[in-house]
Amino acid sequence: MAQLRFRIAISLDGYTAGPEQSVENPLGIGGTRLHEWVFPLAAWRKPHGLEGGKVNESTPVLEELLSNVGATIMGRNMFGGGPGSWDQDDPWNGWWGENPPFHHPVFVLTHHARPPLELEGGTSFTFVTEGIQSAYNQAERAANGRDVALAGGANVARQYLKAGMVDEMVLHLVPTLLGAGDRLFDGITDLKGLRPAQTVAAADVTHLKFARR
Amino acid sequence: MAQLRFRIAISLDGYTAGPEQSVENPLGIGGTRLHEWVFPLAAWRKPHGLEGGKVNESTPVLEELLSNVGATIMGRNMFGGGPGSWDQDDPWNGWWGENPPFHHPVFVLTHHARPPLELEGGTSFTFVTEGIQSAYNQAERAANGRDVALAGGANVARQYLKAGMVDEMVLHLVPTLLGAGDRLFDGITDLKGLRPAQTVAAADVTHLKFARR
Repeated sequence: MAQLRFRIAISLDGYTAGPEQSVENPLGIGGTRLHEWVFPLAAWRKPHGLEGGKVNESTPVLEELLSNVGATIMGRNMFGGGPGSWDQDDPWNGWWGENPPFHHPVFVLTHHARPPLELEGGTSFTFVTEGIQSAYNQAERAANGRDVALAGGANVARQYLKAGMVDEMVLHLVPTLLGAGDRLFDGITDLKGLRPAQTVAAADVTHLKFARR
Repeated sequence: MAQLRFRIAISLDGYTAGPEQSVENPLGIGGTRLHEWVFPLAAWRKPHGLEGGKVNESTPVLEELLSNVGATIMGRNMFGGGPGSWDQDDPWNGWWGENPPFHHPVFVLTHHARPPLELEGGTSFTFVTEGIQSAYNQAERAANGRDVALAGGANVARQYLKAGMVDEMVLHLVPTLLGAGDRLFDGITDLKGLRPAQTVAAADVTHLKFARR
């Protein structure tokens, strides 16, 4: 069975997005601060088609997270867009541009059926309306022996965490406070067998890895 | 000026105590899990008058936290006790026994005046009703050139954090979920100049140190 590997950036006060999330500002107020550690990294820039960048303590963490992944699962908000974007006459292709950084099949959990999208660079988006088990099953088949990445957001992650389906969880703990927004662990009281496996500290982020024994 | 040094254990979901805190169970349901990393340590057992114990990655962190501290500030709940315990005919001396582990003056923030307590081993408890600045001033004088420890709980810590009076903050991040209880950062949106200074990982806890530049 493919490992389901979840990673997400989280603030010191437990938020994965700031307040007032919207189509225009999906990360919420202050939410970009959760991702500032990753943007300068060469290991992040490369799959986005960008050259150069930094190498630091976060580099091997990110490289490991991006390796051996054959499919990705994400929520509709992370794909991008409110109701308007699902207009059949002029469907929006999400946040990710013509050549998204995944380069493998992506499965988007949604309540609204929509035909698949094939984009450049090997990325496809398939829209799954049958829930988290179906998305996992489809992603596992598509991954063809490699692992499945659970990209978020928090709502989808909570569903998989509650179901005990997450095999690996990496929290990128960012030393900032957002004060409000979407809390990853709201309503979750049990890590379902995930145990601390590794901690890696960089100057601007601490990576907390959990895995099943 | 004495450095005000705050340390507290916190769950992955941001709680410093579990739900249903009471006089009988001041840590709330599950709250003892936040402190299991510290009890076996030789560096914790020694000031409590206990011999033996473990040495691990947390040892130098705890030793540093306990060194150069000349006074402690805490909230009334951490001292111990609900209204009954303040009965003038039979006052309770708190959770800490006849020989508390502080071995220096402790200042307890409360709304209820009470005469000071002198206990064994150099620990005294002075009850401060004039608020956080007064407690700091009294603690600084008593510390006589050494630092002042802010022991918690979360309510008192929030007051000092909001006032920007904390010079050093160490979060002992414990990889467990409490699901409910007292959230350290509730209502706090600004670290007031505290910046990440050091991260130390042990198997059962990650120590995140923040300091002023």
